[in-house]
Amino acid sequence: MAANPDKHKQPEAFPAPDPPRAGETAKLWEKTRFVGKPFPRVDAYERLSGSAVYPADVRLPNMLYGAILGSPHANARIKRLDMTRAEKMPGVRAVIGGTVPEANPAWHYRQGRPAMEVAGKLFDPHCRFEGDAVAAVAAENPYQAQDALRAIVVEYEVLPFVADERKALQPGAPLVHGEGNLVQTDRYQRGDVEKGFAEADVVLQETYRSACELHTPMEPHGCVANWERDRLTLWESTQGVFAVQSGVAEILGLPLAKVRVIGGYMGGGFGSKLQAGKYSVIAALLARRTGRPVKLILPREQTYLAVGNRPPCNMRLKAGVRKDGTLTALDFSVLGTGGAYPAGGTSLVDWQVRDLYSCPNVRIETTDVYVNAGPARPFRAPGHPQGSWALEQMMDALAKAIRMDPVEFRLKNVPSGSQAREGMPPYATTGLRQCLEEGARAFGWKEARQKTGAPPGKASGEGHLRRGVGMASGLWVAGGAMPPSTVIVKMFSDGSVNLNMGASDIGTGTKTIMAAVAAEELGMAPESIQIEHADTGTTQYTRPSGGSKTVPTESPAVRAAAIHVKEQLLSIAAEALKADKADLAVMDGRVLSRSDDSKSAKIADLAGLKQRGVIVGIGSRAPDPPGKVVNPFAAQFCEVEVNVLTGEVRILRFLGAHDSGRVMNRLTYDNQVFGGITMGIGFALTECRILDASQTGKLLNRNWHDYKLPTVLDVPAEMVSLPIEILSPEINTTGAKGLGEPVTIPTAAAVANAVYDATGVRITESPISPMQLCKLLSEQLKEG
Amino acid sequence: MAANPDKHKQPEAFPAPDPPRAGETAKLWEKTRFVGKPFPRVDAYERLSGSAVYPADVRLPNMLYGAILGSPHANARIKRLDMTRAEKMPGVRAVIGGTVPEANPAWHYRQGRPAMEVAGKLFDPHCRFEGDAVAAVAAENPYQAQDALRAIVVEYEVLPFVADERKALQPGAPLVHGEGNLVQTDRYQRGDVEKGFAEADVVLQETYRSACELHTPMEPHGCVANWERDRLTLWESTQGVFAVQSGVAEILGLPLAKVRVIGGYMGGGFGSKLQAGKYSVIAALLARRTGRPVKLILPREQTYLAVGNRPPCNMRLKAGVRKDGTLTALDFSVLGTGGAYPAGGTSLVDWQVRDLYSCPNVRIETTDVYVNAGPARPFRAPGHPQGSWALEQMMDALAKAIRMDPVEFRLKNVPSGSQAREGMPPYATTGLRQCLEEGARAFGWKEARQKTGAPPGKASGEGHLRRGVGMASGLWVAGGAMPPSTVIVKMFSDGSVNLNMGASDIGTGTKTIMAAVAAEELGMAPESIQIEHADTGTTQYTRPSGGSKTVPTESPAVRAAAIHVKEQLLSIAAEALKADKADLAVMDGRVLSRSDDSKSAKIADLAGLKQRGVIVGIGSRAPDPPGKVVNPFAAQFCEVEVNVLTGEVRILRFLGAHDSGRVMNRLTYDNQVFGGITMGIGFALTECRILDASQTGKLLNRNWHDYKLPTVLDVPAEMVSLPIEILSPEINTTGAKGLGEPVTIPTAAAVANAVYDATGVRITESPISPMQLCKLLSEQLKEG
Repeated sequence: MAANPDKHKQPEAFPAPDPPRAGETAKLWEKTRFVGKPFPRVDAYERLSGSAVYPADVRLPNMLYGAILGSPHANARIKRLDMTRAEKMPGVRAVIGGTVPEANPAWHYRQGRPAMEVAGKLFDPHCRFEGDAVAAVAAENPYQAQDALRAIVVEYEVLPFVADERKALQPGAPLVHGEGNLVQTDRYQRGDVEKGFAEADVVLQETYRSACELHTPMEPHGCVANWERDRLTLWESTQGVFAVQSGVAEILGLPLAKVRVIGGYMGGGFGSKLQAGKYSVIAALLARRTGRPVKLILPREQTYLAVGNRPPCNMRLKAGVRKDGTLTALDFSVLGTGGAYPAGGTSLVDWQVRDLYSCPNVRIETTDVYVNAGPARPFRAPGHPQGSWALEQMMDALAKAIRMDPVEFRLKNVPSGSQAREGMPPYATTGLRQCLEEGARAFGWKEARQKTGAPPGKASGEGHLRRGVGMASGLWVAGGAMPPSTVIVKMFSDGSVNLNMGASDIGTGTKTIMAAVAAEELGMAPESIQIEHADTGTTQYTRPSGGSKTVPTESPAVRAAAIHVKEQLLSIAAEALKADKADLAVMDGRVLSRSDDSKSAKIADLAGLKQRGVIVGIGSRAPDPPGKVVNPFAAQFCEVEVNVLTGEVRILRFLGAHDSGRVMNRLTYDNQVFGGITMGIGFALTECRILDASQTGKLLNRNWHDYKLPTVLDVPAEMVSLPIEILSPEINTTGAKGLGEPVTIPTAAAVANAVYDATGVRITESPISPMQLCKLLSEQLKEG
Repeated sequence: MAANPDKHKQPEAFPAPDPPRAGETAKLWEKTRFVGKPFPRVDAYERLSGSAVYPADVRLPNMLYGAILGSPHANARIKRLDMTRAEKMPGVRAVIGGTVPEANPAWHYRQGRPAMEVAGKLFDPHCRFEGDAVAAVAAENPYQAQDALRAIVVEYEVLPFVADERKALQPGAPLVHGEGNLVQTDRYQRGDVEKGFAEADVVLQETYRSACELHTPMEPHGCVANWERDRLTLWESTQGVFAVQSGVAEILGLPLAKVRVIGGYMGGGFGSKLQAGKYSVIAALLARRTGRPVKLILPREQTYLAVGNRPPCNMRLKAGVRKDGTLTALDFSVLGTGGAYPAGGTSLVDWQVRDLYSCPNVRIETTDVYVNAGPARPFRAPGHPQGSWALEQMMDALAKAIRMDPVEFRLKNVPSGSQAREGMPPYATTGLRQCLEEGARAFGWKEARQKTGAPPGKASGEGHLRRGVGMASGLWVAGGAMPPSTVIVKMFSDGSVNLNMGASDIGTGTKTIMAAVAAEELGMAPESIQIEHADTGTTQYTRPSGGSKTVPTESPAVRAAAIHVKEQLLSIAAEALKADKADLAVMDGRVLSRSDDSKSAKIADLAGLKQRGVIVGIGSRAPDPPGKVVNPFAAQFCEVEVNVLTGEVRILRFLGAHDSGRVMNRLTYDNQVFGGITMGIGFALTECRILDASQTGKLLNRNWHDYKLPTVLDVPAEMVSLPIEILSPEINTTGAKGLGEPVTIPTAAAVANAVYDATGVRITESPISPMQLCKLLSEQLKEG
């Protein structure tokens, strides 16, 4: 990570910009003191020392431990469920299963928000995937709870299953639901694709498949549930406390005010913790039945089976291009699955093909089917890495075919206007061109490409270690705000500041960035701002932290609240100092006049503030005006070394050039880029849910030994983050676009393109496993 | 409690007043749906079921238990403190004592807020009272902590002490502090007292003494302390989280934002939990030293020794009256003590004499001295019951002397204007006359008096059981608001409501009343409003709950916040319904038009609300305009039966007539009246701290066996609460004055007057113990 070391070094002292003036409400900052600099997380100590309290750390007096019995079969009907033995086991206080009248049937999937619903009945007598909830227990300790699960007698009628989406529509395939396995087919078209192909000099067609990835947050899913009379409190590991609140309230038929969800620290979700889980509702029910608090944390195996995945995707892409590099047509068809319930199996897979490049003729058909597997969930840039896997490999192949440099080829097809295509609203800002140009320059693309670059069908270089470079670009479908959001900033009588916000910090540094935004306005250090967050009882409404929308949504609200505080503070100070408010500024615990050095006061000394006790500032993030699209753009470049004897791929270096608007914290920004690339490397090289599709439908790699996450040994020694920082008030009042998802979109395709560059072998099925690579290399040798 | 049963019966259905209109912001409610009706506490279930979480219930992972070593001597200097053995005891993780550099010397008493400061250094090498903190430990369990205390070796130089305030100024008395035992003497005068006595037909003089009472909340004092890096969280049993926050922040040199104090449920304080205790700071220090959470709850004995008391009071009152009942002069001198530190030993004792009755010539001298005893703290109506004990017994004696009925006599001296005396700002409302008149009528005063009424110097009636009636009136020095206060009300998208307020509910039902205020505005049931409160991290600033100021301070702020929500809701609804906002009202989860039945919408269906996610309303309680005095008034009447053989006093019935403005909740209102009377009965008959003033200075009755609190057996079978409800917008926007303290002011004097009526014996020293009464009755017999 040493390529650009000066980008990471923290300056000895922050440069002092002009102190913020009163009344500077909606203007973008021109100079900043903290925002954009690298600064450590405000909660780094707590996270590293172990003093941070996660939901699993919550221990209430008299607490019980819950556990869920999952179906061992991919498809089975429960013939008999006998819980009587379990009920008599030592320490067992409640066993539930079968029909649970307290849980509202609205639990079922409803049209309109497929990805946001936990699927199926709470305990469905027809188990449609391995791990589907059958029953649950609460006991005095976790061991007694597990013992009790084993004492529940279930007789299953084991049914034939379909675990491979490619077979789901075949005649005679077992039906996941009565009505057939087709969920839906969506079609999109612009221009005339046949005409486009006719105009092309080169037409290529290829099929691609991406494997199913499993969300693997460090912290498993779960919660602690406690009732006080008619009021439920859940300490839950979640990306969105208000989403869990509304889900649980709806299912249990409670008013929202009677469901308090407390998030606090959480150890990652990547999209799998955007809503209430069955575990949330089950914990609440067990607590209600027993009159005692219940902790229910899923074992890793159950998180792998039942709480989400990035579903597998089968894509066919046909593309036409003219010799000058102009794309003439794209025809894209997709077969995907959300598992056993409608969970957006193909959602957003189309987006790269649809909008990344300027192409007049585009046809897309996506087909989503049911299979007997755990439901999908949004997974960091849902659909996008899959679409990128196809499109960006195809772009590489097209460039090769017309003998054009892949970067040049992409630049040729960057939409020329400020919008994706005619008739669309304009982008607030668009940095795709700069990502490509500046990224290529910083990476040394041309030089590196000259050194590698195998002829088609040939591994480049001599010996068994072959080097190659590859790149890919991408856009994220959204990256603007998802209002509404309301935050409160309060200044105590000594000038110290507390920030209340509803958003979760899912590990990305949200708290740190929001502290910096408030600090910027209030002239104080970010770490001195105390934050309470993610609690439906005491913080204000916001949407879940996801969709790369947290910073663009929350930061303008925090800024507005801080300005609201500042305005009130300056009014108090203006009176005390007999000064013109507009002439006053706040800096380092003082209010000072810009024009008169004698007029200055310590905030802690202001009698007017003491009298009020506190200044409360409210800031809201209103919806964006229509007619504006905020998208982040990206281009990533990498160099790999392939061992053509073993099929191992070593990634030597990676560069991510990202247009995500303003850099809020250079340290966490770079961390996001490196983290997203690392996750993309997992998608490219190792991660793959393996179902025993022929015999049992069961998950074969259900632990961290068998499911291969990239570790620090898989990460390139050199990673560079290159922000393409285009500031514009069109984005919002802080200028930040989303970053969390774009950083993982083009990664895998860039790796595949680099492997091709190194070996001449095109790997269209993820992951690029040594076995697959060896097989293709040996085929190449045979053909060669 | 059956005298007025219809006052207690909950109506079958609340009458439906007109739904509240938009824009009715500051007008007093004319009709109400909930406010003023009897309704149960919103948290009754939690309190009764044991599910309510008090600070002592908080259990954090890895938590240690703290304990404090108190001085066993009333006055001693520490010659040697050896903690090494204690440090090596099993389970001990920290021992602190002597000089603690982390605790700021600002800890010391400072002028200006004597009653609000914990006295002395954290660990003072000169222990000035029994129980003064010497050292503290933290250990793995409470038993190990107590064992470790015993292993601390302390060599004391035991010094002579003074425990009786009446001896503190005698020559040669041991000095509590170097500078002598006089704290201060305050003088007040109006008119010409000597001239007043000259104009009088009758002049009486008497000395009175009231015993020292000990705060005895059910829940002992204490907290749980936890650090996250530089941020301290305290779960503390307190009446004021913000007061604890500022005290601890100052002592430990922390910014306010870095001290989070969470109150939650608390089990009473009566004034002894208005500020941080030494235990708060010691718990924080132990937690910092060990890097682990520390729970420190004081044993009952330590709460009796070191966290407050209603100090003893010695009073001499000389009064002149004309035959027509006009008071001509009052000369009042007081000797009191706050214990070993300046803690307002005589504060507010003067107030009844000064302002309750119209008297042109008044002289008051109060002298406060040091003694070697635990510091005083404000105790429910500080000073007032003591002053009432003297004044109201004197009024009784004066009435007797001029052969006037005691009620008539008091009515004669009710200030005639709307102010206490010339030159004072007017009372917002004054109901003293009504309290006397309507109270006497409801009690059947005249009839009862005729049946009892012993001639002077004679017990009334025959046999050994003698009946008497007595009464007394009173005013509370304050009862208006103590702004500022800010509260937040939020309405979720389904129309359910959450109230965030900083105030503690010290057991009086604050949460219930505030829920009703919000409910009244928002047309919903009080119990459906969810409350988060008393948390400096997530609620807004307010003063401690005390001084009978909580309802007058918070209820207008809550009302304003609810109106703020309603205004926003009606704007959304007006747009949706295409209606005039001013014509809309909110009731039972709907917005409806008053003029057009077809225009109506469920709140939960309003798309505009769904879009916003939440409506946030802020309400503040601004300071009252100057020139207005808000005081509650009271008159209490009782009937007693005295066993002249045993000296036992049985209280048969009690009536409290109280002008405290609007009745907010008739149920908790009556509970307050009954509770205050019960506490006053303890003051009158049983409660008395007994120090071994001659030998050791040590507390002799340090537990619930030896310190006699009134129990249910001491409470009269018949208690009647008679609200004198005078509504006025001059009070505030809800019309509530304070109730908590006035209810205990005249009680003890009324009992003493009844005992006099029954027996002819005037008991001037509290408590009216059987021993004292027998002694005086036997003297009466001898004299008779």
